[in-house]
Amino acid sequence: MEGVRALVFDVFGTVVDWREGIAREAAPFLARHGRADLDPRAFADAWRARYQPAMEECRSGRRPFTRLDVLHRENLEAVLRAHGLDPAGIAEAELDALNRAWHRLDPWPDVVPGLTRLKARYVIAPLSNGNVALLLNMAKRAGLPWDAILGAEVAQAYKPQPEAYLRTADILGLAPGQVALVAAHNGDLKAARACGLRTAFVPRPREHGPGQTSDLAPAEAWDVIARDFEDLAARLGC
Amino acid sequence: MEGVRALVFDVFGTVVDWREGIAREAAPFLARHGRADLDPRAFADAWRARYQPAMEECRSGRRPFTRLDVLHRENLEAVLRAHGLDPAGIAEAELDALNRAWHRLDPWPDVVPGLTRLKARYVIAPLSNGNVALLLNMAKRAGLPWDAILGAEVAQAYKPQPEAYLRTADILGLAPGQVALVAAHNGDLKAARACGLRTAFVPRPREHGPGQTSDLAPAEAWDVIARDFEDLAARLGC
Repeated sequence: MEGVRALVFDVFGTVVDWREGIAREAAPFLARHGRADLDPRAFADAWRARYQPAMEECRSGRRPFTRLDVLHRENLEAVLRAHGLDPAGIAEAELDALNRAWHRLDPWPDVVPGLTRLKARYVIAPLSNGNVALLLNMAKRAGLPWDAILGAEVAQAYKPQPEAYLRTADILGLAPGQVALVAAHNGDLKAARACGLRTAFVPRPREHGPGQTSDLAPAEAWDVIARDFEDLAARLGC
Repeated sequence: MEGVRALVFDVFGTVVDWREGIAREAAPFLARHGRADLDPRAFADAWRARYQPAMEECRSGRRPFTRLDVLHRENLEAVLRAHGLDPAGIAEAELDALNRAWHRLDPWPDVVPGLTRLKARYVIAPLSNGNVALLLNMAKRAGLPWDAILGAEVAQAYKPQPEAYLRTADILGLAPGQVALVAAHNGDLKAARACGLRTAFVPRPREHGPGQTSDLAPAEAWDVIARDFEDLAARLGC
């Protein structure tokens, strides 16, 4: 990692536990609308399953870049309909509040102490497909000590498009090799490496719950492999 | 300021003392190149005098949006030539180092304690014509505790274009009236108010040195008028 000046982080799954956070807010919402029978974790999974296809519309050029809050909201309405709930019958403020559950996700326990150590030596910023307001509100609530809020909205491109990584390095005033992506997802790291970024893998084996089968181990010889963010800080001498 | 959720800040002059910071780094540069006779503060003023005209090329549409580091560098070469120094005869690394003096400006003494207090209650971010890397490096060096780095590069528009203010509010996920601009410049506040932002004036009577004649007092009844950032924090109940 010699020469690396900035660490940029995947957020959903790597920094925060989106599944439990969404389930926590979906549970009372579903109960209020007569669907206490639904598993709120399965609801979170169903909402999240629409994430990649929605971004693919933008990546493919079929749709102009559209921030994630908007895609999340469209996906929420679709997933409600798929579960037999009509979003038109639910108050706008209530839909908006549930959509903003993505702004209120909790970090894994090692994140804040790890980032605090890493910040002393590196520029630290999210490189997430989340939009700026989402990431900013999440950081403010959880105490994530980012130096800047970067990512898809600033780069106007969704990962794993090369522009998401390359424009972020350029905005930081750095060469790609001076930036390392920290992620729990091998696919994200692969795309970053193809752009010349350095790579750090931190597994999050409970991101998808107890039955997770994906991204349990590094798929390539990433530049750093760490147990969690505190271990990453230790390995980087922070 | 009821309903305001985010405070966004002009930076050059309002947060940092650009004139003394540039003069401090220009002095040894000029001495090395045989121009110890030049007043480094006058050199800083001459460099800064090219700031608005360079941005006007972008605002007018005659040139695509170009980040401030690039404009600063072009202006540096022009101001060197205007002082009889040929930039082609100076090492690239030395020109780049002087250009990055804009990344190493010191804040006024009330800034860090004031921002720290304001951050407990508001989202705080720069809304500067400086580019992200400039503002980020400045913040990292000076300990400015921004929640995010916003401004012209993220909005792709230079103040006082309305888009610079309106896109910043939109990126924050806020209505213009939920955002207040803090600035030492009446013109900046006037443009922000025309876009529906709230306004806070903090005078910086030494920005241009002891002979300053501009922006010594508020030109309109801004929503808040404070002596400095600590006084601003006190007036906002922080």
